[in-house]
Amino acid sequence: MESSTLVPVSQFSFLPPKPHNRTRIKRRNFFTTIQCNKMYVPGFGEASPEAKAAKHLHNFFTYIAVRIVNAQLESYNREAHAELMEFLERHSLNDGNKFCADLMRESPRHKTLALRILEVRSAYCKNDFEWDNLKRLASKMVDDHNTRLMRDYVLEVSHEES
Amino acid sequence: MESSTLVPVSQFSFLPPKPHNRTRIKRRNFFTTIQCNKMYVPGFGEASPEAKAAKHLHNFFTYIAVRIVNAQLESYNREAHAELMEFLERHSLNDGNKFCADLMRESPRHKTLALRILEVRSAYCKNDFEWDNLKRLASKMVDDHNTRLMRDYVLEVSHEES
Repeated sequence: MESSTLVPVSQFSFLPPKPHNRTRIKRRNFFTTIQCNKMYVPGFGEASPEAKAAKHLHNFFTYIAVRIVNAQLESYNREAHAELMEFLERHSLNDGNKFCADLMRESPRHKTLALRILEVRSAYCKNDFEWDNLKRLASKMVDDHNTRLMRDYVLEVSHEES
Repeated sequence: MESSTLVPVSQFSFLPPKPHNRTRIKRRNFFTTIQCNKMYVPGFGEASPEAKAAKHLHNFFTYIAVRIVNAQLESYNREAHAELMEFLERHSLNDGNKFCADLMRESPRHKTLALRILEVRSAYCKNDFEWDNLKRLASKMVDDHNTRLMRDYVLEVSHEES
């Protein structure tokens, strides 16, 4: 697996959060608090952690779509492949939408490529990406890392004490 | 929503990918290719896009757990809240596991905080995070952005022509 990251979260602010709207609704002329068993997650304002994660998966899907289209072109359209590679050298994929918008405006041939990328990212998100597997892997990862962190700490402390 | 990003993908390499193992298995003494309807995604080697996304969601969950614990401490343990805030100023949350490992070793009081964060990130991932909602939001986002990108392009071109 490569070294790049989906989650540089250091820029997140720990300033006082806006009120969270998940657990409260306005009903008639007074506020009623609905009891919610979920933990209160501050700092996402009107959005939600799910919306934030979706936004970034959206960029990830654009990146995947570019890789898929690029691999397809390599087999059957070397010229278009070279054009896409050249465009990739000049444009960042950090913002998937901006990348597609720029690609669309580069030339009529690039526009065709951009439309193909839009189509592929939609198909990938809806049909190919294994959402259940994502949940399973993420849960397993949390368990494995929690166990490892605690085990390493205990080993370190017991080593120091002996 | 805040400005930070989950997906800086510019570092991804477009070098020739390793062979993808999803569609091929070795059976007896010869290779048999299993037909798979999924699109070929190059460049993830032995891992998968799901594993890559899970890895980064894992860091996202650590960030969320830190926010949750921090908000809880603000209400009932001002001293621990101040200690966590001070630690946050000195340590990056980019690598969730490293953050927890460092927090654990800072002092016995910090260790208690770290264990609480590990517990919360596990509970959040398994019980609170709305996985179905993530899928729904991501699919909707792809559709909305694809439509908007094409509409903007058509409007721009028709404006130029008129």
